[in-house]
Amino acid sequence: MPENARQPGEFELLKRDAATKARLGVLHTAHGPVETPAFMPVGTQATVKALEPRDLAEAKAQIILSNTYHLFLRPGMDVIANAGGLHRFMGWEGPILTDSGGFQVFSLAKIRKLDERGARFSSHIDGHEFFMGPAESMEVQRILGSDIAMVFDECLPWPCDRARAEKSVETTLKWAQASKDAPHAEGQLVFGIVQGGEFADIRRHCAEELVKIGFPGYAIGGVSVGEPEETMYAAVEASVPYLPEDRPRYVMGLGVMHQMAECVARGIDMFDCVLPTRIARHGTAITRHGNVAIKAAKWAKDLGPVEEGCGCYCCRNFSRSYVRHLLAAGEILGVRLLTIHNVHRLLRFMEEMRAAIREGRFDEWRAMVRAETHG
Amino acid sequence: MPENARQPGEFELLKRDAATKARLGVLHTAHGPVETPAFMPVGTQATVKALEPRDLAEAKAQIILSNTYHLFLRPGMDVIANAGGLHRFMGWEGPILTDSGGFQVFSLAKIRKLDERGARFSSHIDGHEFFMGPAESMEVQRILGSDIAMVFDECLPWPCDRARAEKSVETTLKWAQASKDAPHAEGQLVFGIVQGGEFADIRRHCAEELVKIGFPGYAIGGVSVGEPEETMYAAVEASVPYLPEDRPRYVMGLGVMHQMAECVARGIDMFDCVLPTRIARHGTAITRHGNVAIKAAKWAKDLGPVEEGCGCYCCRNFSRSYVRHLLAAGEILGVRLLTIHNVHRLLRFMEEMRAAIREGRFDEWRAMVRAETHG
Repeated sequence: MPENARQPGEFELLKRDAATKARLGVLHTAHGPVETPAFMPVGTQATVKALEPRDLAEAKAQIILSNTYHLFLRPGMDVIANAGGLHRFMGWEGPILTDSGGFQVFSLAKIRKLDERGARFSSHIDGHEFFMGPAESMEVQRILGSDIAMVFDECLPWPCDRARAEKSVETTLKWAQASKDAPHAEGQLVFGIVQGGEFADIRRHCAEELVKIGFPGYAIGGVSVGEPEETMYAAVEASVPYLPEDRPRYVMGLGVMHQMAECVARGIDMFDCVLPTRIARHGTAITRHGNVAIKAAKWAKDLGPVEEGCGCYCCRNFSRSYVRHLLAAGEILGVRLLTIHNVHRLLRFMEEMRAAIREGRFDEWRAMVRAETHG
Repeated sequence: MPENARQPGEFELLKRDAATKARLGVLHTAHGPVETPAFMPVGTQATVKALEPRDLAEAKAQIILSNTYHLFLRPGMDVIANAGGLHRFMGWEGPILTDSGGFQVFSLAKIRKLDERGARFSSHIDGHEFFMGPAESMEVQRILGSDIAMVFDECLPWPCDRARAEKSVETTLKWAQASKDAPHAEGQLVFGIVQGGEFADIRRHCAEELVKIGFPGYAIGGVSVGEPEETMYAAVEASVPYLPEDRPRYVMGLGVMHQMAECVARGIDMFDCVLPTRIARHGTAITRHGNVAIKAAKWAKDLGPVEEGCGCYCCRNFSRSYVRHLLAAGEILGVRLLTIHNVHRLLRFMEEMRAAIREGRFDEWRAMVRAETHG
């Protein structure tokens, strides 16, 4: 196959939308190509929760995300190195992106000491103290052997004042350089991360400096952290113009359908989010017309599928009545069936989106998505 | 297919073992044939825990058991009737055996009042009071539409004194007649249940009286309730000679490999047990050479499969190291993979057993099983 002959990091831009900044592309990785715009299901602890690799293949997941911080703590790098890396450990042959652990260190762990080298923190699992900075993060990601590693950065909270954002971005830029300079796994790509909070000029500065360092792809971080939707789009708009056209752009932590469509319209190519798997565990289904609490009593005798017209294993075989019973009875299968549905739903949404770009009707499709969501 | 043309309840005896009472057979049901000796995975709440119908098909499960008491309480018969019965509700096309609810009423629920008509009890879920006797149990099983319904009986505890056993068996016999006389679903078989505790003469009496009533199959109840292994085999030996040769015999609640082999040697054809699914949830794998706590730290870096030579999805694709990590991290997938393995393991064990009978080497095979277990 020609795709397999491509070098990791090659990004083919197949089509640019005339009316928006949307693009259709293919990113090549050491474990195969990823058609963009792409959504990455999250497998925090070396499993996309409740799913196995064959489920991901059935849902046509192209790439998954796994969390450096969690895997570093449990099972630990000795266990994953012993298995020959994360792909072999979890039995997933496709591409994997690993985050840097930065976001989790700063959000889940208790920071003991933070300096230019990184952070000393205590584990949220057992309180053990560890140090993690760009060198440590890249070493962990090297051992994991992910196809795309992320630079170690500080993810700013929202809101955040200008002085803190300025200072933090300088640290993030130093860490970006250190992350690039560290040893990587063979064929492993390293993406930079644009931070800067809601300050457009700081975002621009961060993007420009990252581009000087030079990465095969760029993420926009510190969005989808509780800010209003317009603030999020503004952060994307403040970053994208200063990133190279020929490199993929990735908004981290975003998985709401209409928001992904809006970001793609602003030039974004990749997304990840725990949303589809997390809300499944709370008994909620993602549908084209919004989220549906399948656990609700009103579905007790509803013989329709979780979502009409959906082709996933759950919707092809089971009723809302049955799934609702499983959830009410605390059965694992209920969570699993909703997870299968939700992941399938978002991946089909991305397929639709790619088809719309390919066929030159993305803006029209995006308006329909917006209407469906707000209708 | 010729099997499909068979009437529900037909039991073909294909081979009798020369050295023991083991038999190879096929029991025909409204949803297809069941090769015996057979093991039935248990799907208490309309799901074999953590598995979906395609997993059961992959494991070549021939028939599953579901629990009348649990389904009666949740989701309730209105929900299952609305779905068109249990097969449609849970998406399982194969045969289903339902227990009568008797065992659960007497073990899980709080009995408010017990008389000849049945028991008034309060639900273990929400304390609601219900009445269940043979008429109610059969009505529930009729709505479930199981292929094999069990008579409503009183399952005696172990130990149990003679006077109580005698009295209880008289009630069980009355309930057996009432269960037979009640309306059933089309093609639904009703099996009688031999009780009598550890008293051989009461077992014999119960068996003889049940045979007078006449059932297409007979279970031996009140075993595997905590009594010594020899007491269990004695109960089987006290019952089997008084049951018709041309009808299947079923030991309820048993799923330990060497014990199933011993019971088959004493003329038993069917088994069920929550064991493979329950111990999976506790991180334990069933293997040919005994149970293995995969959760144990010693497997942290073990790259072998859960069981060497096993062909299940878990063993074909994942290491003990990975499954152990999933269990330690509390991931649903860990429980699911072990459940897949354990159910597969017991079903392959039954296949081996049938092959041994077919090939006239059952007694030799059984000795090997005994040696492996006690070695």
